[in-house]
Amino acid sequence: MKTHKYSVILGNLGNTCDRFCRSYKNNPPALEMLKAAAAIPHVTGIELVGTWDIRPDNAKQMKQALADLGIACVSIIPDVFTRPEFGKGAYSNPDPKCRRLAVDETRRMCDIALEIGCGMLNLWPGQDGYDYLFAADYDKERSLECEAVAELAKAYPQLRFALEYKPKEPRTRCYLARMADTILMAQETGCANVGVTMDTGHAFVAGENPAEAVVLAKRAGNRLFHMHFNDNHACWDDDMIVGSVHSVVFLELLYWLDRCGYAGWLSMDQYPYREDAAGAIGESIQWLVAFQAIVDRHRADLDQAIAAGDPVGTSRLMRRLLLGAR
Amino acid sequence: MKTHKYSVILGNLGNTCDRFCRSYKNNPPALEMLKAAAAIPHVTGIELVGTWDIRPDNAKQMKQALADLGIACVSIIPDVFTRPEFGKGAYSNPDPKCRRLAVDETRRMCDIALEIGCGMLNLWPGQDGYDYLFAADYDKERSLECEAVAELAKAYPQLRFALEYKPKEPRTRCYLARMADTILMAQETGCANVGVTMDTGHAFVAGENPAEAVVLAKRAGNRLFHMHFNDNHACWDDDMIVGSVHSVVFLELLYWLDRCGYAGWLSMDQYPYREDAAGAIGESIQWLVAFQAIVDRHRADLDQAIAAGDPVGTSRLMRRLLLGAR
Amino acid sequence: MKTHKYSVILGNLGNTCDRFCRSYKNNPPALEMLKAAAAIPHVTGIELVGTWDIRPDNAKQMKQALADLGIACVSIIPDVFTRPEFGKGAYSNPDPKCRRLAVDETRRMCDIALEIGCGMLNLWPGQDGYDYLFAADYDKERSLECEAVAELAKAYPQLRFALEYKPKEPRTRCYLARMADTILMAQETGCANVGVTMDTGHAFVAGENPAEAVVLAKRAGNRLFHMHFNDNHACWDDDMIVGSVHSVVFLELLYWLDRCGYAGWLSMDQYPYREDAAGAIGESIQWLVAFQAIVDRHRADLDQAIAAGDPVGTSRLMRRLLLGAR
Amino acid sequence: MKTHKYSVILGNLGNTCDRFCRSYKNNPPALEMLKAAAAIPHVTGIELVGTWDIRPDNAKQMKQALADLGIACVSIIPDVFTRPEFGKGAYSNPDPKCRRLAVDETRRMCDIALEIGCGMLNLWPGQDGYDYLFAADYDKERSLECEAVAELAKAYPQLRFALEYKPKEPRTRCYLARMADTILMAQETGCANVGVTMDTGHAFVAGENPAEAVVLAKRAGNRLFHMHFNDNHACWDDDMIVGSVHSVVFLELLYWLDRCGYAGWLSMDQYPYREDAAGAIGESIQWLVAFQAIVDRHRADLDQAIAAGDPVGTSRLMRRLLLGAR
Repeated sequence: MKTHKYSVILGNLGNTCDRFCRSYKNNPPALEMLKAAAAIPHVTGIELVGTWDIRPDNAKQMKQALADLGIACVSIIPDVFTRPEFGKGAYSNPDPKCRRLAVDETRRMCDIALEIGCGMLNLWPGQDGYDYLFAADYDKERSLECEAVAELAKAYPQLRFALEYKPKEPRTRCYLARMADTILMAQETGCANVGVTMDTGHAFVAGENPAEAVVLAKRAGNRLFHMHFNDNHACWDDDMIVGSVHSVVFLELLYWLDRCGYAGWLSMDQYPYREDAAGAIGESIQWLVAFQAIVDRHRADLDQAIAAGDPVGTSRLMRRLLLGAR
Repeated sequence: MKTHKYSVILGNLGNTCDRFCRSYKNNPPALEMLKAAAAIPHVTGIELVGTWDIRPDNAKQMKQALADLGIACVSIIPDVFTRPEFGKGAYSNPDPKCRRLAVDETRRMCDIALEIGCGMLNLWPGQDGYDYLFAADYDKERSLECEAVAELAKAYPQLRFALEYKPKEPRTRCYLARMADTILMAQETGCANVGVTMDTGHAFVAGENPAEAVVLAKRAGNRLFHMHFNDNHACWDDDMIVGSVHSVVFLELLYWLDRCGYAGWLSMDQYPYREDAAGAIGESIQWLVAFQAIVDRHRADLDQAIAAGDPVGTSRLMRRLLLGAR
Repeated sequence: MKTHKYSVILGNLGNTCDRFCRSYKNNPPALEMLKAAAAIPHVTGIELVGTWDIRPDNAKQMKQALADLGIACVSIIPDVFTRPEFGKGAYSNPDPKCRRLAVDETRRMCDIALEIGCGMLNLWPGQDGYDYLFAADYDKERSLECEAVAELAKAYPQLRFALEYKPKEPRTRCYLARMADTILMAQETGCANVGVTMDTGHAFVAGENPAEAVVLAKRAGNRLFHMHFNDNHACWDDDMIVGSVHSVVFLELLYWLDRCGYAGWLSMDQYPYREDAAGAIGESIQWLVAFQAIVDRHRADLDQAIAAGDPVGTSRLMRRLLLGAR
Repeated sequence: MKTHKYSVILGNLGNTCDRFCRSYKNNPPALEMLKAAAAIPHVTGIELVGTWDIRPDNAKQMKQALADLGIACVSIIPDVFTRPEFGKGAYSNPDPKCRRLAVDETRRMCDIALEIGCGMLNLWPGQDGYDYLFAADYDKERSLECEAVAELAKAYPQLRFALEYKPKEPRTRCYLARMADTILMAQETGCANVGVTMDTGHAFVAGENPAEAVVLAKRAGNRLFHMHFNDNHACWDDDMIVGSVHSVVFLELLYWLDRCGYAGWLSMDQYPYREDAAGAIGESIQWLVAFQAIVDRHRADLDQAIAAGDPVGTSRLMRRLLLGAR
């Protein structure tokens, strides 16, 4: 039986806002959030957002704090999405100055990753995309994005770069929109240390079945580097507690992650607008732990359900595994 | 604790097709389907589609067969959707001849309902709508629909008429598309014996939370007359086994049905394209029975979760109720 | 030929943000925005957001500024959505203190409306809804919402109250979600001065055809009080320039607005995240003016297309009217 | 200026049905449909569905008929989707007998293609997918699909094989669901004569911007082999007349097809359920001809709009090009 590693994005414990309300909560200091994260049952890793949580000036201190708490730094997420300079794109921005800014910011985070012993950069180029038709050169901007990622991956061969896809928000259309698009981008860089982050909520919005997308990544040469978990109502990135909407789909995802040999982290990426953050994130982990226990205990049954290909039999099994009902 | 009544639409046990494949299965005779339906655990009622399952010439025989099996006829569903004459509308068809055909066909089914002791007509005016913009007079056609329904409801005051809504298919836009539209139509008829059928899959496609829609119907004067159950991937009427995609949402729906005093049938309306029909329908009922048992056993906890309004606490409760996990 | 009145929500000319980027632009002073709005061709009215744009302390000054510019105040939109106090609801908040806060804030805006000669309050209760299942009492909260609106409508019979619906954002589910739900709410208040605001983008997200929804409102007793215009990619409230995605649907909407006797304003409600605001808003108006000119010039053809109910003929007409192509 | 080649799928001119109504129309004989297709202005090519339209026994006759009418056979579409044997998959069916049936049927069509001088097979494996979670082995079935396509592509190196993607229908999930998935499949075959068919309606349902997807295919080594055109309301494959919902998006698609060097056919794939078929298909072509004329005439303006990346300027241009409005 596999032991899974659970982690959290630090900022998920902080303040939340939307385009209407600037602040639903107070923002605790990073160190306090770190302690709160470490106190969530099963959490042994953390993801840090560049500049917010970690910068050249606090890297040493953060390294020490993580060591003291026995928490691994799972990834660093460079902030190429909150500054207005990146409003029309970061790595794919047609303005070379903005692009340089994005790449340099990412390089700084790569240096810090090496310094603090973190092996992965999670790149979420949320601003790389477009809003309107006939207002962007898709071909050129995709080339620019590829060049930027390749430059980084080649400069830091000891690090892994996980591209996180999402169909929309903050742009009405993002370039790295779905699993397969993003695999194509990873392949185009020609770098084996470029792969994909799946965020389950982004996959739902993309109309994907996450388990099937995991299989795509495995077939493309084990390109799945990282996992972000949350749930939603299937049309928008609501960033809710795992299990609050979907059940079977998470069970199936965990099953296929194992079967595809995924050995990475299961990281929580939520946005608890109005909820107690540690509570909401902890709940997601508890659901995953419970789902995983079901998968571990009943793997042979699940194998057989898939082999049988009979939805009625599968339904009976699901009812038994999920509800304990015959 | 309430005892729920489970029923089935007879045709769900028969042949299936789509616009590509004319026949995935064989079509057993109606009487054989009836026996198969009656043999599904918990089933005590049946819905019959007019003309397919029941006609003036076989009404007596059907009545006897139902009596022999101890099965109630829950509703008759007049067929105003499979004949090309209704391709551009039944009750709202601008051609008065087609409209008359639809109303007369429905009247025949009302007569049969009275004859066989069935109290409800389930009207699904699937062809009443439009496909293209600027190709239908929405105002006039809605008036025609209202008139037709009102004529029927006034002619048969002993019967209840449940309007089943669905946003699209077979038209790209159907007039009775959502719960609230359909409540407005029911009110506009001025007849207290006109209400609404909710099909859970149609509600998902409409972007509704079924439980909230049930509350709307209750507030509008207990207009929820009937329930059809199935599950889907939330963008199309896939007519799948209950519980195969969603869990919590069904739990919540059953809770609010009780709380709103719904005393009608829980009827299965599936379309098991490639599955064993009795098996697939039986599974839906088993899921509902299991969900209902959870609701019945933990009603006080659920009441309290709603009153507390704390999603973290609700998540903990759901995990316990659904997975038996702490 | 009707003369249409075009207006703008003042705040659309100001700063923009999202949950990632706090500020894409600078925020000009209200008076400067007002001048910029007044300078947009065809604009003769403005909507003001309570507290941001207008407060007891600046009402006189604003009234004068509007008079100087010859601009009408079309509506006041009380801010019951940007403050964390309203994070779990304004008019429907289970906490009576929050509800009172919302109603009192709205009353203040009603007083100002009377003072400055504005006849309409546009109520957008965006926070009235819920995020998670089993975490809100839909029945009770809907009652609370109705009571609050009724209290306001009865206290200010000289004013009209237009309820703006939207299926989601900032909550994952909002109570006033679609046209028909909102009509039911307006009716339930028992007040003839309560009606509906349709925002075209919200209607797209709700899966509605706006023209058909306008007909619903007309049939329910002319409950359409106000119109907000913008465009989107049909799954989220992107708040884009009118005509950037859809064309025929706007043409059809303008046609049916006229046919249903809508005599209100056509107000622009956009969110030009990264665009020149006055430019983007001005474009929407220019598209509407151009669409309206087509409707006005070819009304007889459009009447006939609808009466004919032939999508091929309609297509030919659309091609001629939109592209000038035979 | 490019000359575009317009074609039609022959069956689009025949009978239509859905899962409710078995027949909205009469089905004319193939030869009559062929004449009707040839009579549609601008049509110079036809796509034939295997078995329905073309079989070993009528291949010679069909070849002669096409020659007489001066119509090219653009592609043959083997029927691996209408027979119940393929209900649980054709090329990916876990049952080797079904798979063999599908491959052999396709081989027969390849032989006919060579015989009648048609250079392309359009493969739409609509039944290759799944309906329920935990009921299919995604990894194995994708391998089977790849093997089958590779076997065909290697056996017929003179032919091109265009894989047509679609997210769902007739399965609730199809394996070839989006542009990038399908590119990955084409690459995995290792055959340069395997590429992609984009159906614009399928792209809308997949949440893609068609123009951007065309760029993806170009970047992946000119994998776009074929185009099917139709329009829809963006959530389901309504197979409507081009231009009846979207305008700008088609303009942008045609622009990028040219810019990416697409030299294939523009083929109409509609499903005129209730409309005059030749009329509805002819309308689509007329819209495309009109859009193409705009692109051809204003290419420099469009190049510049894209280079400028200013949605306000683009909007102004679109208004001028589409509506002739300043």
